[in-house]
Amino acid sequence: PNDLEARNQFPALPTGLSPCELQRGRISIDSSNSHESKSPEFEAFYVLRPRGPSGEGKVLPIFAFMHAILENKKAHNTDKYKCSTLIVRRNKEFTIIIKLDRAFNAEQDDVQIEFMIGSLPNENKGTYITLSIGKRKHNGHWKGRVVEIQGHDVTVGITPDASCIIGRFRTFVAVMTDLGKWRTQRNVDTDLYVLFNPWDPADQVYMDKEEDRQEYVMNDVGTIYNGEFNNITSRSWNFGQFEEGVLDACLMVMDAGKVPLLFRGNATEVVRQGSALLNAQDDDGLMVGNWSGDYSGGTAPTAWTGSPEILLKYVKEGCDPVCFAQCWVFAGVLNTLMRCLGIPSRVITNFFSAHDNTGNLKTDIVLDDDGKVDRSRTKDSVWNYHCWNEVYVKRLDLPEKYSGWQVVDSTPQETSDGLYRCGPTSVNAIKEGELSYPFDAKFVFAEVNSDVIYHKSDKSGKMEIIYVDSAYIGKILVTKKKGSSTYEDITSTYKYQEGSLKEREAMQTAVRRGVSTKDYLPLTEAGVDFELQADTIKMGDNLKLTLNIKNQTSHTCTLSATITGCVVYYTGITSTTFKHENKSAIVESLTIDVKALEYMPYLVEQSNLLFVVYGHVEERDASLSSMRVVTLSPPELAIKVMTGSPRLGKEVMISVDFQNPYNFNLQNVQLRIDGPGLIPTKLKHYSQILPGASVKYKVSLFPQSLGKKVLMACLDCPLLRQVTNQLEFEVVQD
Amino acid sequence: PNDLEARNQFPALPTGLSPCELQRGRISIDSSNSHESKSPEFEAFYVLRPRGPSGEGKVLPIFAFMHAILENKKAHNTDKYKCSTLIVRRNKEFTIIIKLDRAFNAEQDDVQIEFMIGSLPNENKGTYITLSIGKRKHNGHWKGRVVEIQGHDVTVGITPDASCIIGRFRTFVAVMTDLGKWRTQRNVDTDLYVLFNPWDPADQVYMDKEEDRQEYVMNDVGTIYNGEFNNITSRSWNFGQFEEGVLDACLMVMDAGKVPLLFRGNATEVVRQGSALLNAQDDDGLMVGNWSGDYSGGTAPTAWTGSPEILLKYVKEGCDPVCFAQCWVFAGVLNTLMRCLGIPSRVITNFFSAHDNTGNLKTDIVLDDDGKVDRSRTKDSVWNYHCWNEVYVKRLDLPEKYSGWQVVDSTPQETSDGLYRCGPTSVNAIKEGELSYPFDAKFVFAEVNSDVIYHKSDKSGKMEIIYVDSAYIGKILVTKKKGSSTYEDITSTYKYQEGSLKEREAMQTAVRRGVSTKDYLPLTEAGVDFELQADTIKMGDNLKLTLNIKNQTSHTCTLSATITGCVVYYTGITSTTFKHENKSAIVESLTIDVKALEYMPYLVEQSNLLFVVYGHVEERDASLSSMRVVTLSPPELAIKVMTGSPRLGKEVMISVDFQNPYNFNLQNVQLRIDGPGLIPTKLKHYSQILPGASVKYKVSLFPQSLGKKVLMACLDCPLLRQVTNQLEFEVVQD
Repeated sequence: PNDLEARNQFPALPTGLSPCELQRGRISIDSSNSHESKSPEFEAFYVLRPRGPSGEGKVLPIFAFMHAILENKKAHNTDKYKCSTLIVRRNKEFTIIIKLDRAFNAEQDDVQIEFMIGSLPNENKGTYITLSIGKRKHNGHWKGRVVEIQGHDVTVGITPDASCIIGRFRTFVAVMTDLGKWRTQRNVDTDLYVLFNPWDPADQVYMDKEEDRQEYVMNDVGTIYNGEFNNITSRSWNFGQFEEGVLDACLMVMDAGKVPLLFRGNATEVVRQGSALLNAQDDDGLMVGNWSGDYSGGTAPTAWTGSPEILLKYVKEGCDPVCFAQCWVFAGVLNTLMRCLGIPSRVITNFFSAHDNTGNLKTDIVLDDDGKVDRSRTKDSVWNYHCWNEVYVKRLDLPEKYSGWQVVDSTPQETSDGLYRCGPTSVNAIKEGELSYPFDAKFVFAEVNSDVIYHKSDKSGKMEIIYVDSAYIGKILVTKKKGSSTYEDITSTYKYQEGSLKEREAMQTAVRRGVSTKDYLPLTEAGVDFELQADTIKMGDNLKLTLNIKNQTSHTCTLSATITGCVVYYTGITSTTFKHENKSAIVESLTIDVKALEYMPYLVEQSNLLFVVYGHVEERDASLSSMRVVTLSPPELAIKVMTGSPRLGKEVMISVDFQNPYNFNLQNVQLRIDGPGLIPTKLKHYSQILPGASVKYKVSLFPQSLGKKVLMACLDCPLLRQVTNQLEFEVVQD
Repeated sequence: PNDLEARNQFPALPTGLSPCELQRGRISIDSSNSHESKSPEFEAFYVLRPRGPSGEGKVLPIFAFMHAILENKKAHNTDKYKCSTLIVRRNKEFTIIIKLDRAFNAEQDDVQIEFMIGSLPNENKGTYITLSIGKRKHNGHWKGRVVEIQGHDVTVGITPDASCIIGRFRTFVAVMTDLGKWRTQRNVDTDLYVLFNPWDPADQVYMDKEEDRQEYVMNDVGTIYNGEFNNITSRSWNFGQFEEGVLDACLMVMDAGKVPLLFRGNATEVVRQGSALLNAQDDDGLMVGNWSGDYSGGTAPTAWTGSPEILLKYVKEGCDPVCFAQCWVFAGVLNTLMRCLGIPSRVITNFFSAHDNTGNLKTDIVLDDDGKVDRSRTKDSVWNYHCWNEVYVKRLDLPEKYSGWQVVDSTPQETSDGLYRCGPTSVNAIKEGELSYPFDAKFVFAEVNSDVIYHKSDKSGKMEIIYVDSAYIGKILVTKKKGSSTYEDITSTYKYQEGSLKEREAMQTAVRRGVSTKDYLPLTEAGVDFELQADTIKMGDNLKLTLNIKNQTSHTCTLSATITGCVVYYTGITSTTFKHENKSAIVESLTIDVKALEYMPYLVEQSNLLFVVYGHVEERDASLSSMRVVTLSPPELAIKVMTGSPRLGKEVMISVDFQNPYNFNLQNVQLRIDGPGLIPTKLKHYSQILPGASVKYKVSLFPQSLGKKVLMACLDCPLLRQVTNQLEFEVVQD
């Protein structure tokens, strides 16, 4: 078992014994970085009677010691963190300077440097680390050496080992004498954060290209893709892993989730824990998932612009879960947690993602006698898009070829082995259908490889499979291209080409690993194929749908088609059905007109419409079916720099403009402006924006560093969700 | 992820929304066998306006239907269950008889047989099964056929599919007419339990030898081994899987743990869930683990005689966890759960079982400057013995060679992936060091393969490794031999021979799968070896220890030895140190005398003494160390049949006799008598038994079946734990 002893939740017992007492003679686990042990300034050796700390001439008093913070941080790629404490990465030397009141004597003096984390520092568990310099050289897992002696100052070089625990350590310097150990006082200024090190080949998270590290570890803004697969839209996200307080917040999330310190050196564990802790289900997690449309007790998932606001709110409110999140929020914040701790990561969007809750690679869509989706019998769902993360980790627990990018998903879709979490699971293993290895490979495989099975029920409720679409799910997987804001198609890292030999082999392997076979009886060939086409339109416009029909036979085929239009959540769950039309044709195409008036009253959330076509070819008594999601574009949100090119340290005025193009009031409007490294998240409320009315929000900021910056804005209200835009600009020398 | 959606524990939210409401547009999972859906007696087809159930001449009324319970149960190997309801096994035909008020017409009549489980019966999820006979033959996953028509009676043969959900199904028979579906009323008498089928090659739990099935599925008594590896003792255990109410209790445990019905057809899932649900940690589990020595709020773990008493108490008290259990109780009850549901299983005892809580294959024993065990720095422990289970399951999720016996452990030692549970993990995979596959292979591998590392600290607290013992852990693994009450040594199924090539290869594989290497520096050879020998003695006797010293060199070796004796829990945790002796010798052996007076005042629990020897060879300045556990035998408990050979249906008088051989009072004594198939557990209290006093407890019983029976008794009180005995006898025809 994974050693999470501390997560135990004992039931209330009829006896007066506490959980701890029941385990008398059992062992407890340290799972808090913020709890401290006591480190006395004098520890007497127990065989001697100490004469007290006074009047001892031989003692070598330490005046002070300091970390060379700036130099160290630059060398460790941690200078971007807005934090005055030293931050280093594993397996790379950093230096501390010990100031004495006389010169250091390497033959006689015995100086020990101690690092402690948690409340039960223990050498065997890597939570108590000591190094000795001087007469008794001693290295444990961390290495130490005297780099330089200058007058009364000794510069010591220290290298944490490549698999050590990450987190905030307390540092002490001690002098060993015959009487005992004299130790410096606890001083938060000499604390030390140790992070994962993607720059070091011995670290589990090593990436060999600098451009990869710059994107997947160091980039603090990103793009999250959404919309529909043939009209991919996007929004910017402020990962903000270097913002003030974010690193502490990330450690606090792990403390709240009682992740044992012992595990915090293993990236696989940290990733898995992260996926569980981001959602509030079954632990004191970070965010509450809410797909109800009612976000009155918190912030709508669509309204956030980035992670720091959420992480800082969590800490400020005493680790109370933040309301509310949906998949891109979970993925955006998990990306922050990972990059902040030094694990390379990126946000992925899977278009038409199956949420297969029977684990059988089939997504069942049940149509009723009229050709409409029967909601009560359709238990699976296809998310229009679903966001998750990939992290780049060496899987020490698996055969080597399964290292590299790993899927991790913190959206509470299904529980994994009893808790809401998913992954890490190797992308390579998914592609090969090698699904036996931990964690959750089968679920991810189904998300990208399920078939859509259309069933139709007759009037007695008896169901029949009428059509199988094996190309609908996992249509395309994308992520932000490195060094660019366009997307990269990474579908081929998850799947071999549809219909290829390799694809068949991968599916056979998956079946041998316990995935159910796709055991449908062969269906009557309809001899006809069709595709539903739609224009890209703005919300509020009329829509024209075209059903392109291809007769693949040389005979006449008469198609009777039933087209149903309904409003749909991005999770694929249908809301109101607003259109139901029967058409019949021998022709090549059919058009269906949808008026704005038809759908506007019913829109939910992200303004998606779902059209389902059920077709019946009379001549062959065969059926076919197809679905099409149409995402309506929102109106524009304009961001402008009002004061010429932004210069370092000079005021820049920004304006965000919006006009309500609709004939209804927009109420309870939230407008957020965000820019990592530029300003903390700004939030403006408008109680209403009348039809035709405009709002202008001005913000002033003073750029503190040079280079490319991104400002992003998001307007959100119950009737109009997720109106976003972003502006890139270069901050130049004044 | 495994689909345990229902286990979610949402935090209290600041909004007024319930967890369900947050998931509007998400999906809920059915995880209760005992909740029912409504099944109306008439369901109108929704396109027709039903004319009501009256006055419809064409309807084929069903008078009644019945299961041929006795014949079916015999054929399905379920006739031993004390339960009047039909119990069948998967993939084997059973019959039901449908009684009509006229003859059945196979060309015109349309009769449907329905099976439902849970509150949301759904065809896609296997919780709603329909079969049709008559004009519209229809088979889903379950097959149906008309076996015979006799007058107005139709005998239908039904075969549940080999992977169907196990549990209690409601059965209905319906007649389809033009108007709708006419359905029989809900009747608990026609309910149907479906169990796993070890007799069927298509079932995941198939075993091919009848003698194996008789032992691992059908045997309702067993032997659990304990004590120490060179003095293996045992106690009988009443598994009682066929006792009245036990099957329902087992299903209730799964309901309380919210195991989704969808998973209850997969033996791997049922096993994993079982391991989590048996302990009360982090779910509404069955039993509370308690190792404190204070069992005042419940029953001492040592006092139980079998599983039915525990399972029935759990149900009677509204699924409140039962107090208290330790490893053999968890293993005994899990064995009942498995055998009751039809999964072959057995109880294993591992002598010297490492509880490695750093996951590094090292069990660290820290001795202080005096050679005593330093409890505050010894965080790992070696259990004198630890019990777990093996189940025989085909692992559909893994490569084929990892099917067969699987380790499963329900004692809450460590959490596995966040919850207290362990396994199933393939015994074959443990032997090969192939530790990547789920579940918890690394933890089990460490339990049988860790090294014991002796550290010694000097006066400044600095630790040094002085000795490594790689043969101590996992000394021997045993289980009850089939058809016998002696034990079978199954160590070779877990490990290749110590020192063999295969063993080294397995260890190398384990290291490649992420187990830490055993990276000790070579130690100075002491040139001397020693072994501590002890007699088997009764509690209260004096003990003589012999330290046999072997000088492997041709030189003189002077050994100074420190022997520490302490009282120890069976978990390896030490309590009081009662002896500390230094001896020095050049001779071949040393003897140490231990007087009863020295240890008696300090005994805990199962009367184990631990002796640790620290030796130092002066000539070579080398150290060595060794441990030895001595289990003290308890006084005798006598069971006798007082009335000649037991005969079917005739009264048999049994007496249990005990005399207190000590010079102290035994207080709060519990005496249990148990016998599966003979009597329900009998419990007798004695407030005290004075020194030298005897008690006699008489019980009368009336054997209801022929053959070999086992009666067991257990006497238990705070000062004297687990005094057990058993009596086998044959019930003969009167």
